[in-house]
Amino acid sequence: MGTEQTDKFKIIQVKRSIFEDNNKDAEKLRQQLKEEKTFLLNLMSSPGAEKTSTLLALSKELSWKVKMGVMEADIDAAVDAETMTEAGVKSIQIHTGGMCHLDADMTRQGLTEFGTKDLDLVILENVGNLVCPAEFDTGAVRNMTILSVPEGHDKPLKYPLMYETCDLMVVNKIDVLDYFDFDKEKAVEYAKMRNPDIDVIFISAKTGEGIPQLAEWILKNVKEWCAS
Amino acid sequence: MGTEQTDKFKIIQVKRSIFEDNNKDAEKLRQQLKEEKTFLLNLMSSPGAEKTSTLLALSKELSWKVKMGVMEADIDAAVDAETMTEAGVKSIQIHTGGMCHLDADMTRQGLTEFGTKDLDLVILENVGNLVCPAEFDTGAVRNMTILSVPEGHDKPLKYPLMYETCDLMVVNKIDVLDYFDFDKEKAVEYAKMRNPDIDVIFISAKTGEGIPQLAEWILKNVKEWCAS
Repeated sequence: MGTEQTDKFKIIQVKRSIFEDNNKDAEKLRQQLKEEKTFLLNLMSSPGAEKTSTLLALSKELSWKVKMGVMEADIDAAVDAETMTEAGVKSIQIHTGGMCHLDADMTRQGLTEFGTKDLDLVILENVGNLVCPAEFDTGAVRNMTILSVPEGHDKPLKYPLMYETCDLMVVNKIDVLDYFDFDKEKAVEYAKMRNPDIDVIFISAKTGEGIPQLAEWILKNVKEWCAS
Repeated sequence: MGTEQTDKFKIIQVKRSIFEDNNKDAEKLRQQLKEEKTFLLNLMSSPGAEKTSTLLALSKELSWKVKMGVMEADIDAAVDAETMTEAGVKSIQIHTGGMCHLDADMTRQGLTEFGTKDLDLVILENVGNLVCPAEFDTGAVRNMTILSVPEGHDKPLKYPLMYETCDLMVVNKIDVLDYFDFDKEKAVEYAKMRNPDIDVIFISAKTGEGIPQLAEWILKNVKEWCAS
């Protein structure tokens, strides 16, 4: 594992996991996090669905209510960690070395380097991809996915596993609904077809609409996890 | 390999490749296609960048100039092949069985089932993903990627290999430029940073703007390939 320290945040290069049984390892990581009382939320989406902008908007709602940190996973570049750090959010950049996802051990490498003892909530911004990240349990307590309006309402039909594994679908960019043929009801119907228990929240990271509801959803889940 | 015949098109389930050396196998496929004088174009993008809508718009320009067919690769669903077939374009749906990309052998399975002897141009619509498809040479003569305006101009920074492997970047959804913070010059600059030789064409699959230029780029490449 290589580590690089910029003037504001660390960039770490995680190594391919040596664990054969990722599910078992993910369960172990979840138990460790439970003992530490740190809630890990895994955020997934297509490239360009505004994961980072959503986190920025969320941090304004959440950072005075919980001690939070953000782990930014990317194949290359550190623009997301830069953006978050500039906004005053404790961040770390994880480089996956070309890999399209994070597994539990890679997530652990990131968390260890990040230092999570003092944090109540860590949000992992996974690699922008609707396929591979859904296949690997990261050890997170909850999974959420962002579907943005310009992508179209048919994504749950084409990427079933993503919606099966997520507890929450956030529909973002609702400020541009008028300019796209996006059917809100169909988006919900298709997501529920994959996972009847999935929660749905409509937001605009740009205008801030729906962000308080999303923050509330996260806080509720953090509290339940800590109390359980 | 499982095959299912709908009333309009075939759905085939390709199997994981048995070839260890995909690059060698891709080169072999390219040679076979050259002998048949069939030009294979590999189309990649994020989910929701409008690969299918772009193909629909393109087919109106191209179908009376070349004999073309479209292979739609998806993890699940057959909505794209349905759309193309309804528009009168010869199509086949390939299911990847959960896999995030197509390699050369999977592409060959699709082409064989499709029947390409009478086709001048086959466009392969790869799985919506900016990571894995870029890692596997499909045997295509040219690779193109669509970057849509709502995704943001920073994608070439985050997904370097996609832009390194592509001969053409199409910037789509330019009809909504006014509603997004998308810098056209930066998009080109970042793409050229990854690949100085990459061509760039701006289009709107919705309004048809730029589609003639895109069709011309494809025809020029088909002609060069057949003449060489």
